[in-house]
Amino acid sequence: MNQHELVRELAEKADTKIVLLVADGLGGLPMQLGGRTELETAATPNLDRLASLGTCGSSIPVLPGITPGSGPGHLGLFGYDPLEFKIGRGALEATGIGFELGPDDVAVRGNFCTLDAAGLITDRRAGRIPSEESFQVVDRLQGIRIDGVETFVKPVKEHRFVVVFRGPGLCGAVADTDPQAIGVAPLAAVGLVPAAERTARVANDFIRQAGALLANETKANGMVLRGFAAKPQLPSYQELYSLRAAAVAVYPMYKGLARLAGMTLVGNAHTLDEQIDELARCWNDFDFFFLHFKYTDSTGEDGLFTEKVARIEELDRAIPRIEKLRPDVLIVTGDHSTPSKLKNHSWHPVPTLLSANTCRPDGLEKFSERDCLRGGLGMFPAKHLMLMAMAHGLRFGKYGA
Amino acid sequence: MNQHELVRELAEKADTKIVLLVADGLGGLPMQLGGRTELETAATPNLDRLASLGTCGSSIPVLPGITPGSGPGHLGLFGYDPLEFKIGRGALEATGIGFELGPDDVAVRGNFCTLDAAGLITDRRAGRIPSEESFQVVDRLQGIRIDGVETFVKPVKEHRFVVVFRGPGLCGAVADTDPQAIGVAPLAAVGLVPAAERTARVANDFIRQAGALLANETKANGMVLRGFAAKPQLPSYQELYSLRAAAVAVYPMYKGLARLAGMTLVGNAHTLDEQIDELARCWNDFDFFFLHFKYTDSTGEDGLFTEKVARIEELDRAIPRIEKLRPDVLIVTGDHSTPSKLKNHSWHPVPTLLSANTCRPDGLEKFSERDCLRGGLGMFPAKHLMLMAMAHGLRFGKYGA
Repeated sequence: MNQHELVRELAEKADTKIVLLVADGLGGLPMQLGGRTELETAATPNLDRLASLGTCGSSIPVLPGITPGSGPGHLGLFGYDPLEFKIGRGALEATGIGFELGPDDVAVRGNFCTLDAAGLITDRRAGRIPSEESFQVVDRLQGIRIDGVETFVKPVKEHRFVVVFRGPGLCGAVADTDPQAIGVAPLAAVGLVPAAERTARVANDFIRQAGALLANETKANGMVLRGFAAKPQLPSYQELYSLRAAAVAVYPMYKGLARLAGMTLVGNAHTLDEQIDELARCWNDFDFFFLHFKYTDSTGEDGLFTEKVARIEELDRAIPRIEKLRPDVLIVTGDHSTPSKLKNHSWHPVPTLLSANTCRPDGLEKFSERDCLRGGLGMFPAKHLMLMAMAHGLRFGKYGA
Repeated sequence: MNQHELVRELAEKADTKIVLLVADGLGGLPMQLGGRTELETAATPNLDRLASLGTCGSSIPVLPGITPGSGPGHLGLFGYDPLEFKIGRGALEATGIGFELGPDDVAVRGNFCTLDAAGLITDRRAGRIPSEESFQVVDRLQGIRIDGVETFVKPVKEHRFVVVFRGPGLCGAVADTDPQAIGVAPLAAVGLVPAAERTARVANDFIRQAGALLANETKANGMVLRGFAAKPQLPSYQELYSLRAAAVAVYPMYKGLARLAGMTLVGNAHTLDEQIDELARCWNDFDFFFLHFKYTDSTGEDGLFTEKVARIEELDRAIPRIEKLRPDVLIVTGDHSTPSKLKNHSWHPVPTLLSANTCRPDGLEKFSERDCLRGGLGMFPAKHLMLMAMAHGLRFGKYGA
């Protein structure tokens, strides 16, 4: 019996409210060996108070040593094994720009490139044309028509865009057309299984029509497609946990990930304060609330240690407003670590705090990476976090008699 | 290679003695956040002394957040993955009243109910008739005869009883006859697979004959059957570990669980002192001894914090008598937590202590939930405990050259 079968069997309804506050990239590193991390440097009186009454631990997003992207990082927190459930690159890219994928969709990431007169690639990124120019090129592709298939072309940034093919019977098992080299022609789309042959033909038709429409472009006169992918099939929160789940996020990527898990997107907040306003507003309509805070990640990615510390302190100041709503379970964690020192996501375990009336004291007095190592949640795979959330929300029946 | 294959390959005979003392529901919670648990409150000089020389840890019975019943809780401690090995409701119920299931048996839990003249259920629990009355009704069912099948009917409590069908080729894959509603008739038993069709016919024959025998009852004139289940197929202690294993338990449920794992039931003790008498008596005849202490669970279930503390202290006082026998490995743990605060089993990790000459000191000076978090066994799945028991008993060969 696997985790999802178990969850389906044990989930019960209850009146409890669970808040999952994800500070993206929360975990960090000291800039110098032996120093303090961002979280250890920040003044976090509210988180420390929650830690002293709650229970803490260290979350491992995928496996020790494995650095996750945003997709697997959030899937783990949402209770999906990120090694079992995968979001293909095209589907993640579409999700990231707020495109709502349907069951008949295959999404693919496109890069404009520059072709010479012989059709060979001279620049794989079309000179990294500015977004304004690229958006106009994308506009030109809206005229493409393919029999029995609806086509959506959406700009992303610079030379990057997304294509979504919508129609019955499409399949994501199509090889990339990107040869990953210059001096050669883009590859034709090829189905990797018989069921994907039609999708490959659709993609080749799209590329052919696009070639005609872009013939006069000096930079973006060709394209390569990567990461064909259908919408991932995730059992929903409602189905798994019998939870009415709401997502209060600011950025399209996280809204999209929440939607893939069957959460309802709530409000249109731009700041953490507005997110908590939205939380309060929809408090009676849902059981589970996913709040996403981006800036602990973006400051880390930019290598801005002091700014990341400030963002953690901003998060800490918001805690009392959430507590006022009296959630039965309040979890603060991250989807991965983003140490300013590395300017990147990392594999380090993520400090995690769970506050509930059913917590067993673990003797911690501070919320930090170092303290979490001694916490009552131990070191745990992120995919187990929802089990703890449900348990402390008194939403699980007993397993076996 | 799974855990059992590994164990079979590595198990070696030795002269060592292993004692597994299970304090049922040992783990607890403080009544108020930030306070002390039952175990932290109790004066446990003997357990503390063992902890300071031994190694401790926190056992997770099934998965984080999952609250086990007694069945899965003990299966884990005995080294069986409780998500892989399951004991069906009927088999557990039969086990719980001390009925020894055989390989040809299918057991099912029965509830007497009240039917109206049209055969529709008016009370799903037959007015919760008192056990004395129910026992007489059960007696009347002893006259049922079914071709080629032996039938056992045993009272449990109030409206509950157990039926065991014994005969070659019976199968537990039969749907419940309980419609879980009133105003409707009980369902007919239906085989869920072709191999169970005969068992379903046997059950329907039983129900038909019972109906005639109970026709004049005012309350218990009908029945519903739930949880058809054959005896679970557990590889035995002898086969897995090459251990001659004895169980010294007081309550039928735990005797039954031990018997399912192939342990030999020893003596007929009613108190912990008598259990230790039995332990001493059979010391030379076995290698492994399972002692079950019930009252840390029952006091927790009743919400009696102070009484649970007293029971833990009673357990502590018994430790020196066990030590006098000079076990090579002495383990003290629980099958799950039963915090008085929750008056129920819970998902919290279980404090666990292993004492042996081969322990690496972990710096603890006290046996408590909080200390166990920092112990040398770490936080571990209960099913790994037997691996540690065997290792410290010097009963495993090396894996690989």
